[in-house]
Amino acid sequence: MSGPAGAFALHPQLQADTHPVGDLDLSRVLLIDDANYPWLLLVPRRADLTELIDLGDDERSRFMSEITAVARALKDATACEKLNVAALGNAVPQLHVHVIARRRTDAAWPKPVWGVVPPRAYADDERERLLQSIRTRLWTS
Amino acid sequence: MSGPAGAFALHPQLQADTHPVGDLDLSRVLLIDDANYPWLLLVPRRADLTELIDLGDDERSRFMSEITAVARALKDATACEKLNVAALGNAVPQLHVHVIARRRTDAAWPKPVWGVVPPRAYADDERERLLQSIRTRLWTS
Repeated sequence: MSGPAGAFALHPQLQADTHPVGDLDLSRVLLIDDANYPWLLLVPRRADLTELIDLGDDERSRFMSEITAVARALKDATACEKLNVAALGNAVPQLHVHVIARRRTDAAWPKPVWGVVPPRAYADDERERLLQSIRTRLWTS
Repeated sequence: MSGPAGAFALHPQLQADTHPVGDLDLSRVLLIDDANYPWLLLVPRRADLTELIDLGDDERSRFMSEITAVARALKDATACEKLNVAALGNAVPQLHVHVIARRRTDAAWPKPVWGVVPPRAYADDERERLLQSIRTRLWTS
């Protein structure tokens, strides 16, 4: 998704499905609005990226470090039993990586989460608590 | 999955579902025996790994480089339209990363591949051609 002069612009579908968590050096971090699973996205703030292999070596290395930091923060914030990390992009071509906290009791376990049950909206206070817990771990450690 | 003295041993389910492609510095590369999609796995040859964040920084960096090399080789060998890259591990706990070549005409598009249609066995010559094409790109460039 490129805006004027190739500037980064978040894909409208990703914008519609998420709440902002914050920006790391390279990535915008987003929370998917689905209370079935604590589910984050990382989107590199660069225009015209579709695949992980579209990133240059230095930025891919940076992106991988940010994925690791987000995965650790999510695991720590949720005490989840498993992490799922994936770059798919079949529906939304803008490069984005899913980092999902899974439990053996969640709505899709042991299947991958996509398409199993309809999204369930967060209560406002539930979402805010999760966002705050993740932000604390990503930006104040 | 650890063997004697914590040695690496491929999980029996991964062994059963795949054909060997070869070993990179860190990873064993495997071809999933499902002709619906050209589908590779990378498994770091270290005992007792479940999550990407279980790898130390240096080995995770090495692993990411190998994922990138495998993704490029698969894209080049198949001229696919999209790559799907994922570390899930809900069913098989040994750390493994899927790298899957997707086409808009494949059996699951645009869904993720897991659980959509039953695996379809390769014809021997079809599998050997694909293996050779991937090996050439990974080990003789």
